[in-house]
Amino acid sequence: MNKQVKLAKRPVGLPDEETWVMETNPIPEPADGEMLIEQHYISLDPAMRGWMNDARSYIPPVQIGEVMRAGSVGVVTKSNNGKFAEGTVLSGWGGVQQYIATNGAGFYPVDTNLAPMPTYIGTLGMPGMTAYFGLLEVGKPREGDTVLVSGAAGAVGSIVGQIAKIKGCRAVGIAGGPEKCAYLVNELGFDGAIDYKNESVSKGIKRECPDGIDVYFDNVGGDILDAALARINRGARIPICGAISQYNNTTAIKGPANYLSLLVNRASMTGLVVLDYQDRYMEGAMQMGQWMAQGKLKSREDIYEGIENFRETFLRLFNGDKMGKLVLKVKED
Amino acid sequence: MNKQVKLAKRPVGLPDEETWVMETNPIPEPADGEMLIEQHYISLDPAMRGWMNDARSYIPPVQIGEVMRAGSVGVVTKSNNGKFAEGTVLSGWGGVQQYIATNGAGFYPVDTNLAPMPTYIGTLGMPGMTAYFGLLEVGKPREGDTVLVSGAAGAVGSIVGQIAKIKGCRAVGIAGGPEKCAYLVNELGFDGAIDYKNESVSKGIKRECPDGIDVYFDNVGGDILDAALARINRGARIPICGAISQYNNTTAIKGPANYLSLLVNRASMTGLVVLDYQDRYMEGAMQMGQWMAQGKLKSREDIYEGIENFRETFLRLFNGDKMGKLVLKVKED
Repeated sequence: MNKQVKLAKRPVGLPDEETWVMETNPIPEPADGEMLIEQHYISLDPAMRGWMNDARSYIPPVQIGEVMRAGSVGVVTKSNNGKFAEGTVLSGWGGVQQYIATNGAGFYPVDTNLAPMPTYIGTLGMPGMTAYFGLLEVGKPREGDTVLVSGAAGAVGSIVGQIAKIKGCRAVGIAGGPEKCAYLVNELGFDGAIDYKNESVSKGIKRECPDGIDVYFDNVGGDILDAALARINRGARIPICGAISQYNNTTAIKGPANYLSLLVNRASMTGLVVLDYQDRYMEGAMQMGQWMAQGKLKSREDIYEGIENFRETFLRLFNGDKMGKLVLKVKED
Repeated sequence: MNKQVKLAKRPVGLPDEETWVMETNPIPEPADGEMLIEQHYISLDPAMRGWMNDARSYIPPVQIGEVMRAGSVGVVTKSNNGKFAEGTVLSGWGGVQQYIATNGAGFYPVDTNLAPMPTYIGTLGMPGMTAYFGLLEVGKPREGDTVLVSGAAGAVGSIVGQIAKIKGCRAVGIAGGPEKCAYLVNELGFDGAIDYKNESVSKGIKRECPDGIDVYFDNVGGDILDAALARINRGARIPICGAISQYNNTTAIKGPANYLSLLVNRASMTGLVVLDYQDRYMEGAMQMGQWMAQGKLKSREDIYEGIENFRETFLRLFNGDKMGKLVLKVKED
């Protein structure tokens, strides 16, 4: 049977138990030209919260009754499709379900000899591409720059900081709790870390960015964005990748009160959507794969099991109770 | 005698009667290498409000007891300076006073055969340069773009819209009251105007920018910035020139709640300080002078008289009771 998680109603604030419904349906039969993918892992990303809102955005919202949109990685188990044979490992937009019958549009093969499956929805997937192109193309770090990143122990932030180091920058991360902060500095080689749960972020920035901030890669928005704006250098670049602190607001989003620091410092704040770099993913994946092989870039996935646990696992994105890339294994052994 | 307006205390909110004090002192005697300038006109600009705050900014704040900083234009009446002879008309940072003895640093000669004195502190001075470089270098308008500008009947905004027209764009202005809006469309050739005092700015933008906004040149911040953010196109550019709606706040500045529209639309918001283009002012002035001579660019000054009226004239910047570039004549006839 095929367990599928479908959107049942649009959430207000954090998704509750009525937001999704799990259905058990027969495994679909691939039509002519289609194949059946057995999905192994589902990617859990903060952006998914945005896709649930009925609002104009960079992709259409998930509709009520549809399978919840998610990135995934899995194996072709039946193929009526000339392109991908049985046994091929594919990554794509498989959604929160155990099986999908598809003509393969939007799926691409990945090599599990080079990296394990979950890495292809993490560092070698969307989050990694977001970090790579967002930092290099929007943040434009120069050697010697100070690069500050929030959500630094997460799938995107942890890669941003490591790429900043590779590019000769001072990398400083903001994360929640001493364990994550120690991980950034001791495991990933960040120059400094700020524990937003246990210290003033403003004071932390002063301490860890004594020469100010040249690039602030923002994943969180809210007060942390304001604290960063207060310490940017002339000509600083702020890629806006997300605003996880604001996604579950039931009131209006908090705009950055310190935005006039952009004026004083001739700085810029620029929105970033990874889909714009689709035709360069191969370049990004090859470079990141090389850095991983050289031991310069570490990838960490935090893997939970069971499609039944989708909601509670998803909520870890927002309560911070995870480390690295959040992944749900949906294949049953 | 030399009447001088000095900063007496730092204002909270709008400057009150105790913010400045007027002193009458003897006309200074130019030392060796100096000259005496009799000032004719003082420039009144929203940025002056920012210079009064004791805060890190792009130039140091005016200190208590100092002559209030202001751009000015005047005539050399005595010269012990080899560079500028008696009778030369100079523009520079003369401050709010009738006479200044200076070695000429920061002053430059202007040609009153080409344009009257007040134009050199307006369209051919700092506000004009702000519009020119801010729109062209930060806003980067392309032919066919929709350019929206706030404070559109002001010294900077009125020039921004006219340059947008010259560059083949659709120019839409936001201003307060039917008289200003009619002026934008009928006198300056804007394609549309939105009267923020008498209509919903959001609805006005929908009406006047049916294809969305490609460049929003922001002089005002606050709710109008949010309304513009809600209608930007993909890749839109937002030069942040000022935030006049927020300068006299006694509470925290209102950050743009819709800033995540930057993300969705891959748009950018970039701070702009005209002083950065100092080495290109000549280029800007020549181009703008040419457009004026060709009748493509209109300059309008709103001139009040009497240094005694400095404060009440200055307040017109914030209550909107003026049209075009606000100028104070300080020379007594």
